Amino acid sequence: MKYFAVTLASLLAASEAFTAHNFKPASLSKTSLDAVNVGIVGGGVVGGGICEILTKKSDYLTALCSDTIEVKSICVRDLDKPRDFEIPEGCSLTDKADDILNSDDIDVVVEVMGGTTIAKDVVFNALSNGKHVVTANKALIADCLAEIEDHLKKVNDGKSAEDSIQFNYEAAVCGGIPIINSLQSDFPGDDIDMIAGIINGCTNFMLTAMDRDGLSYEAALAEASKLGYAEADPTLDVGGFDARSKLKILMRLAYGIDVEESNIPCRGIQELTATDYDYAKSLGGTIKLLGVAQREEDGKVSGFVSPCYIAATDSLSSVNDATNAVEISSSNLQRTTYIGQGAGRYPTANSCVNDIVAIAKGDVNVSPFNPADDGAKFVQQYDSVFYLRLKYSDQVGITRQCGEICEKYGVSIHSILQNPRSSKKDDSFVIVTEEVSNTNMKKVVAELEGLDWVQGPAFWMPVLRPDWM
Amino acid sequence: MKYFAVTLASLLAASEAFTAHNFKPASLSKTSLDAVNVGIVGGGVVGGGICEILTKKSDYLTALCSDTIEVKSICVRDLDKPRDFEIPEGCSLTDKADDILNSDDIDVVVEVMGGTTIAKDVVFNALSNGKHVVTANKALIADCLAEIEDHLKKVNDGKSAEDSIQFNYEAAVCGGIPIINSLQSDFPGDDIDMIAGIINGCTNFMLTAMDRDGLSYEAALAEASKLGYAEADPTLDVGGFDARSKLKILMRLAYGIDVEESNIPCRGIQELTATDYDYAKSLGGTIKLLGVAQREEDGKVSGFVSPCYIAATDSLSSVNDATNAVEISSSNLQRTTYIGQGAGRYPTANSCVNDIVAIAKGDVNVSPFNPADDGAKFVQQYDSVFYLRLKYSDQVGITRQCGEICEKYGVSIHSILQNPRSSKKDDSFVIVTEEVSNTNMKKVVAELEGLDWVQGPAFWMPVLRPDWM
Repeated sequence: MKYFAVTLASLLAASEAFTAHNFKPASLSKTSLDAVNVGIVGGGVVGGGICEILTKKSDYLTALCSDTIEVKSICVRDLDKPRDFEIPEGCSLTDKADDILNSDDIDVVVEVMGGTTIAKDVVFNALSNGKHVVTANKALIADCLAEIEDHLKKVNDGKSAEDSIQFNYEAAVCGGIPIINSLQSDFPGDDIDMIAGIINGCTNFMLTAMDRDGLSYEAALAEASKLGYAEADPTLDVGGFDARSKLKILMRLAYGIDVEESNIPCRGIQELTATDYDYAKSLGGTIKLLGVAQREEDGKVSGFVSPCYIAATDSLSSVNDATNAVEISSSNLQRTTYIGQGAGRYPTANSCVNDIVAIAKGDVNVSPFNPADDGAKFVQQYDSVFYLRLKYSDQVGITRQCGEICEKYGVSIHSILQNPRSSKKDDSFVIVTEEVSNTNMKKVVAELEGLDWVQGPAFWMPVLRPDWM
Repeated sequence: MKYFAVTLASLLAASEAFTAHNFKPASLSKTSLDAVNVGIVGGGVVGGGICEILTKKSDYLTALCSDTIEVKSICVRDLDKPRDFEIPEGCSLTDKADDILNSDDIDVVVEVMGGTTIAKDVVFNALSNGKHVVTANKALIADCLAEIEDHLKKVNDGKSAEDSIQFNYEAAVCGGIPIINSLQSDFPGDDIDMIAGIINGCTNFMLTAMDRDGLSYEAALAEASKLGYAEADPTLDVGGFDARSKLKILMRLAYGIDVEESNIPCRGIQELTATDYDYAKSLGGTIKLLGVAQREEDGKVSGFVSPCYIAATDSLSSVNDATNAVEISSSNLQRTTYIGQGAGRYPTANSCVNDIVAIAKGDVNVSPFNPADDGAKFVQQYDSVFYLRLKYSDQVGITRQCGEICEKYGVSIHSILQNPRSSKKDDSFVIVTEEVSNTNMKKVVAELEGLDWVQGPAFWMPVLRPDWM
């Protein structure tokens, strides 16, 4: 057991050699009596969950961080409202965020109030006051991440990495999936080709209910709302806008670009029908609402939110109910997929606690996003195989006209599918293309929709990695 | 834009308030001229990949870490052997590990030579000499993690967290999947109920080829060997022993226990037949070789490696070819699944680079494993639904005898399945049990195998989350 023959002298020598090289300079030791004092702005579902976890795991976290983590103050809207969690020992309630923001006693401000107005003030003022910030606020991050990063840069100007103020927002995207941390820690030596994610729990729950359980769109939405999966305004979910906010954040992390949300092509699930699931089944897969961003051949980055066909052999295809998933394709790691809970009290609170613990441990996000300044620009155009469903009234010449219009715009047809007709009124067929640009598809669809045999609007969506090619 | 009205005075005030509280004490600033000097022991597949990534991403990593990361020396077996990668600028080759271990110029030693003899010396001596260590060595970690942790504790005794020597081994389990980092960073506030993983790429490749492509066991193994998925001694793969090593490490991280590998029940894939896949299909799922560890009701921890039935709706069921996956069930996060490449040059090298970057950034693993000292003990007994296949020669009384023996040991039968017989010689039927203990199953199987109508050994395996219950 020679390994244990470590004398004090050898340790000192090793330590001196190490310090001499000046790689990790000596700093004042944190004593074990230090505490990390937390102020939480927002005493609701997530704030309560954070308190519960920090109380339950207090001894363990103290051992892990060599610091006690103590919730000193919670800012709530209404001091008299009954709470569904126990206020931690020694923690005061206030209804003024400034009590927390201006307190010399608070090290970490946790913003879990939501919204983008007061919450923005809270985050910026906390950072200005030299407090670390943890937030679960997706809307705020989607709106202001670049602005917050600029502010953080000013706050940290002249500070060493060890002394820098940290800003962590793991819970802001996909609640319990550590996707922010992973994009910051697991890909610095890698190049991300594509991110594709099921990043809205409400719509995934609805699509699962429609596909697996045969529910109507309306019944699925009602069920999702009842279970608390839908936003107050469900248009944010079913229209794809919540997914788009998250995709914007993921694109910032993966490619260092700050894309205007409204520039990201976005199609919701409202036009999906049982017929599409029938066709998806006959193609051997299913349909999920995905947020997709990818590096194009010229270095530009494209992205969109849309229902997409995915093969049954694809890991994303078995991600059901309100579960989220993010898949990252990259040069080194090839394909990595993270599946987990995208929302809910404890998954979200757990991510906030991880952010607090990272701060207590002194972990440093030197850069809050992938800083590769490779001039990546966002473009709306991307190439894909597409699925196009047309409702029609039968007549002579349909196939010829489809062929002519596709040919006109360089859209090569892979196959035309037609399931046995269930009703004369609901006749439809599907064109599956080869890989073409969405720009050309748009033109094809617009021209087809102008033909007299086409009934109502066409529905079209990308095919993620066709397994028949 | 009031957020930007941050005056120097307000920043100073904030900084003073912050320092006054003594939470993150000031330390000497790292200057941007600092370099993190790396010595790599092992110039093979992984070592070469690390050099390539560090060279390719040099500018980016310097910006990220405020440090340049430079490979200063590589220790190789044969100095004259041609390499399939470019030796980084300013990097020397040596065939003596001591040149790296004793160099005052090296901050981080990366051990990618493999094995458990010299590699163990390298790791222990590097730590003794005050060098951070990164390793991709699964066998070493499985054998010696607890010993290394003890050694590290001595090396770091009296050091502040910031000055402590780091030991990172992300690549040692599931190559490119950041499962070690995740277990260390994402679950400190959580309690892990179960880990279930496809943690051996060779066998998953073989089972996929047998199930999806109809290959024989022998053809599948030959193909896996040809593609480099099999260990030099494939028994380590097909016997489940490689998976068991990884499971042992995961149990250390999840539960803080150090289990003797030979105590973990281990069944390989050698007894699996096409018949089992037929039955799995008729049950609606498939069969994967899993490593499973779970918290039992009495707080004890059980674990095993075995082929397991899993439902098609389960995310693990679509993890095919050499891809790995780890699923973690926990109180807060519910179920989280990580899917990715378990081996290969760039996935493994990428994980090593992440470990190096974390050290360069100054991230601290205060504790290298879950330190919850809750007295968890490993037990071989666990409860599960089981699948039991028996080959038989037909006679009267089979059902009665099965019923009697199961009843004798309290094993409740959920169903008896019998696919249409393909050949008189290969008759088999399957018993699916309710949830019972493996101990009782063992007794049932032993007694059944003694009956004259049972042909050859029985095959039995756990059912992971039966979807029919």
